[in-house]
Amino acid sequence: MQQPVTGKFGRLEKDLFEMSMESAHSLVKKYGDTIDLVMFANAFGGEYSGETGLNNRISSALFDDPVPSIRIENTSSSGATAIHVARSLVDSGSAHSILIIGSEKMTSVNTRKSSAIIASLLDPLERSAGLTLPSLAGFLANMYMRKYGASRESIAQVSVKNHRNAIHNENAHHMKSVSLSNVLASKTIASPLRLFEFCPISDGSVSLLISGDEDAASMSGKGIRIAGSAMSSGLTQISMREDILRLEVIERSSSAAMEQAGIAPKDIDFAELHDMASILEIVEAEAIGLFPRGSAWKEVLDGSMDPDGIMPVNVSGGLLARGHPIAATGLAQAHEAYVQLTGSAGPRQLKDPHYGLSVNMAGFGNSATCIAYEAN
Amino acid sequence: MQQPVTGKFGRLEKDLFEMSMESAHSLVKKYGDTIDLVMFANAFGGEYSGETGLNNRISSALFDDPVPSIRIENTSSSGATAIHVARSLVDSGSAHSILIIGSEKMTSVNTRKSSAIIASLLDPLERSAGLTLPSLAGFLANMYMRKYGASRESIAQVSVKNHRNAIHNENAHHMKSVSLSNVLASKTIASPLRLFEFCPISDGSVSLLISGDEDAASMSGKGIRIAGSAMSSGLTQISMREDILRLEVIERSSSAAMEQAGIAPKDIDFAELHDMASILEIVEAEAIGLFPRGSAWKEVLDGSMDPDGIMPVNVSGGLLARGHPIAATGLAQAHEAYVQLTGSAGPRQLKDPHYGLSVNMAGFGNSATCIAYEAN
Repeated sequence: MQQPVTGKFGRLEKDLFEMSMESAHSLVKKYGDTIDLVMFANAFGGEYSGETGLNNRISSALFDDPVPSIRIENTSSSGATAIHVARSLVDSGSAHSILIIGSEKMTSVNTRKSSAIIASLLDPLERSAGLTLPSLAGFLANMYMRKYGASRESIAQVSVKNHRNAIHNENAHHMKSVSLSNVLASKTIASPLRLFEFCPISDGSVSLLISGDEDAASMSGKGIRIAGSAMSSGLTQISMREDILRLEVIERSSSAAMEQAGIAPKDIDFAELHDMASILEIVEAEAIGLFPRGSAWKEVLDGSMDPDGIMPVNVSGGLLARGHPIAATGLAQAHEAYVQLTGSAGPRQLKDPHYGLSVNMAGFGNSATCIAYEAN
Repeated sequence: MQQPVTGKFGRLEKDLFEMSMESAHSLVKKYGDTIDLVMFANAFGGEYSGETGLNNRISSALFDDPVPSIRIENTSSSGATAIHVARSLVDSGSAHSILIIGSEKMTSVNTRKSSAIIASLLDPLERSAGLTLPSLAGFLANMYMRKYGASRESIAQVSVKNHRNAIHNENAHHMKSVSLSNVLASKTIASPLRLFEFCPISDGSVSLLISGDEDAASMSGKGIRIAGSAMSSGLTQISMREDILRLEVIERSSSAAMEQAGIAPKDIDFAELHDMASILEIVEAEAIGLFPRGSAWKEVLDGSMDPDGIMPVNVSGGLLARGHPIAATGLAQAHEAYVQLTGSAGPRQLKDPHYGLSVNMAGFGNSATCIAYEAN
């Protein structure tokens, strides 16, 4: 994987096309000759902006000699899904070097409309019963606290940590710390979870290249290796799951990705998890096996997931503070893995990491794509 | 490629999920154990039905043990694009057998809203100038007639032929013949083209399997071989193209697909082309090289593209009469190739075909995917 480029996440002036062009531009300028496929990861361009067919429009604007393009969509994990598919296509030799552009424009509509667009990925029966993604997160938090005796503060602390991390990420939507009391005093969204415990509504775009090993060597930039990647799908109907506290798609995709990479959780030096809501970071860390089930909340309090802890999680600021422009998120996670593993993370650089892991989740555990990254 | 299953195209009672389940069900029942990836080809589920994340919902409903799923989108050529990508993934060994489900539900909104959804794939500048896909087709028809002296009747005759073919296709949206005078007397949509020269607005779903050769042998059904497949992207801005009469994406994708297959246009026994409008079938046949440029309109009049002609085109009824549920179309073309090449096309069976070619186009030549099929 080569040279991810990310723009600032947040409420942006640029439209979906412009953001995408901006993040892809320098890569095409530098590596355009090698690129033979464009993958556009985007979940909701038609719904948010009334624009479709953007993969072709972007490709035709970026290249003098047009390059075939497709759109890959898998709701919130569209970005990592594109990486996973691109990796397979490059490994197979059916593509040489793939440009992935992951973009989402979410601030073009109001919050109410945005929430409705996102809720369209829930099972219709459960949606008609009034469920939303935030309400599911609130439900999960309650279950987790009851089952494991987790403190309310431990969950809110995830948000405090990730906002603190984002101060060192100039591309983050929110570069502002929040105190525990700030979080706990913010507006209740889905009891017990509060406003600062949910990701903001963000615009953003990230581009990167997936190339074979030979390409990587011939490129002037430093690449990192995708040591493993796997997808998993699960029951969309939350009420049909045996154990809602287990995010099985993450268990399965992460164990498959780690197996491919020949590593175990103890080998991972940092993780970028899908903290759409604070509680999810805790449950995901357990699903991967970073900590035993029911224990991750204590580790948050102990600082284990801090940048200087034993298992740094969401050093980038995560979805909570970096932002979550749906299809861009998986690629932003890859960007973080890249800068950490090439030693170019600046003020948030971890000490000599060798393996990183990212989890990008669709819906509420409907699907997940897990990628294991290795320094070259 | 194995066992495509298509339901009836038309104005259906079923919703997008139900149609998809119906077309995929029998394949999963028979081959479920071998399937390790689900590709859902769908262009406008969010826009037409307010439903997203359907790839996961469908996969989770079809399989006891959930299979990873992704959505592939490339506007009108989403179906063939999925075949092309699936073929690469199977060839690479990163998937064993892929279930592709291509579905579109278009009759859930009125014609005006439907037209707006489809127009969202045009370049915004050109769209704001009032261009629509039908208006572009009318423009093309005028240019073609002027440049090559084609008769108005020759273009309308494409519609007559394809409707006549569809009488033998029980899954076609319109199983009703139209006379030349019917066509020429129907409502003007985009001068000179008339209502019966445009594809109807249809619902529909098609499913099929892409498996490696070893699988194909072990399967009880008869498979056909994808001998070549290629995608091409072109300028989305029509006004920027050097020659609007040349559909360059079709020239490039078809020559690449034929090269892979080791064949020339003369080897092709039948073609399924993207006749969103009557004139497009003529121009596409020339872009592939089935007939010299500027001559295909005469061939239509001479019956060369009839089922008993030298180069049968759209024996299925094509988009004009079979219907064009956007993402399902490329898979319906594959279905036609399958039944023809396995000798199971019933009343529309051609005599011993060995090679078939399909062209599935996105937008107005923004992109195309061409597939060459070979009998086993």
